[in-house]
Amino acid sequence: MLKKIVPFIAFIFCCLASIAQSEDSITIKKISDEVLTNGKAYENLRFLCKKIGQRISGSPSAQKAVEATFEMLKDAGADTVYLQQCKVPHWVRGIKETGFIQFAGQKYPLHLCSLGNSLGTGLKGINAPVIEVSSFKQLDQLGAAIIKGKIVFFNFVMNPTYVQTFRAYSESGISRWQGASKAASYGAIGVMVRSLASNTDNYPHTGAMKYNDSFPKIPAVAISTNDAEWLSRKLKLRMQLTASFTNTSFVLPDTTSYNVVGEIRGSEFPKEIITVGGHLDSWDLAEGANDDGTGVMQSIEVLRALKATGIKPKRTVRAVMFMDEENGGRGGDKYLELAEKNKETHLFALESDAGGFTPRGFSLEMSEAQISKITQWKDLFLNYGVYDFTGRSSGSDVGPLRKIGTACAELVPDSQRYFDIHHAATDVFENVNKRELHLGAVNMAILIYLIDKYGL
Amino acid sequence: MLKKIVPFIAFIFCCLASIAQSEDSITIKKISDEVLTNGKAYENLRFLCKKIGQRISGSPSAQKAVEATFEMLKDAGADTVYLQQCKVPHWVRGIKETGFIQFAGQKYPLHLCSLGNSLGTGLKGINAPVIEVSSFKQLDQLGAAIIKGKIVFFNFVMNPTYVQTFRAYSESGISRWQGASKAASYGAIGVMVRSLASNTDNYPHTGAMKYNDSFPKIPAVAISTNDAEWLSRKLKLRMQLTASFTNTSFVLPDTTSYNVVGEIRGSEFPKEIITVGGHLDSWDLAEGANDDGTGVMQSIEVLRALKATGIKPKRTVRAVMFMDEENGGRGGDKYLELAEKNKETHLFALESDAGGFTPRGFSLEMSEAQISKITQWKDLFLNYGVYDFTGRSSGSDVGPLRKIGTACAELVPDSQRYFDIHHAATDVFENVNKRELHLGAVNMAILIYLIDKYGL
Repeated sequence: MLKKIVPFIAFIFCCLASIAQSEDSITIKKISDEVLTNGKAYENLRFLCKKIGQRISGSPSAQKAVEATFEMLKDAGADTVYLQQCKVPHWVRGIKETGFIQFAGQKYPLHLCSLGNSLGTGLKGINAPVIEVSSFKQLDQLGAAIIKGKIVFFNFVMNPTYVQTFRAYSESGISRWQGASKAASYGAIGVMVRSLASNTDNYPHTGAMKYNDSFPKIPAVAISTNDAEWLSRKLKLRMQLTASFTNTSFVLPDTTSYNVVGEIRGSEFPKEIITVGGHLDSWDLAEGANDDGTGVMQSIEVLRALKATGIKPKRTVRAVMFMDEENGGRGGDKYLELAEKNKETHLFALESDAGGFTPRGFSLEMSEAQISKITQWKDLFLNYGVYDFTGRSSGSDVGPLRKIGTACAELVPDSQRYFDIHHAATDVFENVNKRELHLGAVNMAILIYLIDKYGL
Repeated sequence: MLKKIVPFIAFIFCCLASIAQSEDSITIKKISDEVLTNGKAYENLRFLCKKIGQRISGSPSAQKAVEATFEMLKDAGADTVYLQQCKVPHWVRGIKETGFIQFAGQKYPLHLCSLGNSLGTGLKGINAPVIEVSSFKQLDQLGAAIIKGKIVFFNFVMNPTYVQTFRAYSESGISRWQGASKAASYGAIGVMVRSLASNTDNYPHTGAMKYNDSFPKIPAVAISTNDAEWLSRKLKLRMQLTASFTNTSFVLPDTTSYNVVGEIRGSEFPKEIITVGGHLDSWDLAEGANDDGTGVMQSIEVLRALKATGIKPKRTVRAVMFMDEENGGRGGDKYLELAEKNKETHLFALESDAGGFTPRGFSLEMSEAQISKITQWKDLFLNYGVYDFTGRSSGSDVGPLRKIGTACAELVPDSQRYFDIHHAATDVFENVNKRELHLGAVNMAILIYLIDKYGL
């Protein structure tokens, strides 16, 4: 008898599962239609970019962005909107940087900008022979004998053969992050870092650097990829070149800022929290459209889409605009701190911080069992362009929640265009496509919907 | 004994298959690295767009494009480069179109352009009350009583809920293609068609229309999506509006043009031909960057990549720049005609004509057995972003080869941005991303490599 019952039960189970999937397909289509037809992320992003613009941590415009997204969350239909106060660093670029290369009595101006957190040269600037290195190993080999008193030019090219551009960014990114202190350890007086960009143009790309307190804190600037190519060609001719630059960046005392949080309270398990977020701060050279205005607006859109389609989440869904991702991650740290203090249960947290490009997948940082559960839903995403669940990391704002066991994930959009504009003056609203942005929000909402419905 | 032999043979077979796959992975990586590092498609496209620009069938610039790509194919390493002469239509836009809406004594100018193949109004233009329809059914219902003597405004909105934008294009596209004759059948004197675009802006999008010889040939223009939205709002207020427009487009006698063909002769089966192509002509409002400069340059790049990586194809691989896809498809027809005349064996033909955006898949128009064979290689494409083999159509230039049983396919790039710029003044080089373009060429080369190696 058992022999007959087991297949029968299996059959019933399959039928139920398939009915559930088909119900889910219908709800998911409803979400998608709503976002693709009435989505507000694009127009909200236009406001953030064009009416507020750059919003570096600690700046008055970051405060304006807090206020604007507070209103947007209310308009999206959040039950509650509130702020989480946190202290953030306050780095200031100062006056427009200048720099040039000098040889044979001529000056050749460079397109450059201070790296974030770099200290300044003072108004007189610095001037020294320039040495190119393309790896830290090469720097170590040259040592103090060659490096002392020089300006080091880190020419770490982003590897074009990596199909996923983030891999190349991570690899070359150490030049920006650690280069200054590495060079200072051998007595360099300043560094010029090749911009971390996939393309070649005249725009320098800023981004965070960090000093190692064991060494002198020397000034650090990024030069454009065109300038880096040109400079490298000149140096290969064994020309004796002198570099000069002036930057007046400095650090003010930490200041007060906020995460902005909007919630739809769960109807069955209000104490179980699902977070979806992006970061509200940006670098100061442009509008921070793709980094990360898009992630912020997609997160608000997830809330709006749930509300507009009449989905009442069982769990509490929170859209969080994290402050200070670029410059220290204080918002993400504060979010964890409050979660621990308030003894909150955080089931799942999703971040979008890789640009507003067409979505391709989700990167999942969680247990194997949780990964299996999500990948079982794979087919439900296929019609919406998401197929790739192979990544195993999550974002830096939700990442701290790993400490309390939260399953974390990140949207994986197409990465080909991101590093053309990342942290440069070209990261503007015009480089975001409405349909691509909204399709990201569609897939984020689908994942949130499924996890809310079935748990994790 | 057999019981033991069968699994053993199966085991050996699996080992061999896995060795072959791993050898293929290595070659494929070589192709990808070559294209992503040294690819010429992007710079070739810059030349086509910026030095030649628009190249509508029959125009002097189309001839320049023939000459330029002839040279590019030689530079790419083709053994033989030659032309295939064909007659092409020669439609001319005439002087810049003008048009406006008149009500309450005021004139409101429109952003508009002639549709391709439309006849002109003459310099005096036409002027009549305007009637909006959003479906052919609605047009039929209004009938001659209402339509006679009017200008019909076809407001067929591209459906935003379709994730694949081509689906929305096909659905709404009938307004452009058939609208004029449908309206003329009820006595309309002209038509204004809402531009087939996913976004809303001020650029009109041109494209082919076709007259039905049974009805008067009335002039047809496209208006921008912003104008269409505005006009529709006004008409909904039941305002009595008059539309006027002037276009002076006309048709000259057919003229001589060419497909451009470059070949690498097969080392084992030179008589079996594998074609890869795009179309060289474009509409006349812009540079035809994504339509279809990208497909042309990717096809040349496939040849270049095979040559540069030292792959010697067994079969003859041909890159074909088809002429006149936009305006009649004469180049594609000629290609079939010559294939039949010369009794050529065409194993496979691949087209790229959906923009130079990140590739997502291939659409396969061939036998089920052939589809199975290709989808067995699916995993080899995954690292290069291609996962979707569900489409079952191919392009309009290789399509004619179906008549002689050729397996046909088309590259499927991401479709979200295409109809923002398609056939409009915004289809320029700046809207093509180098990495996306080259990644398309990588996947095209992989497919050609596998089919050449294993047959189909």
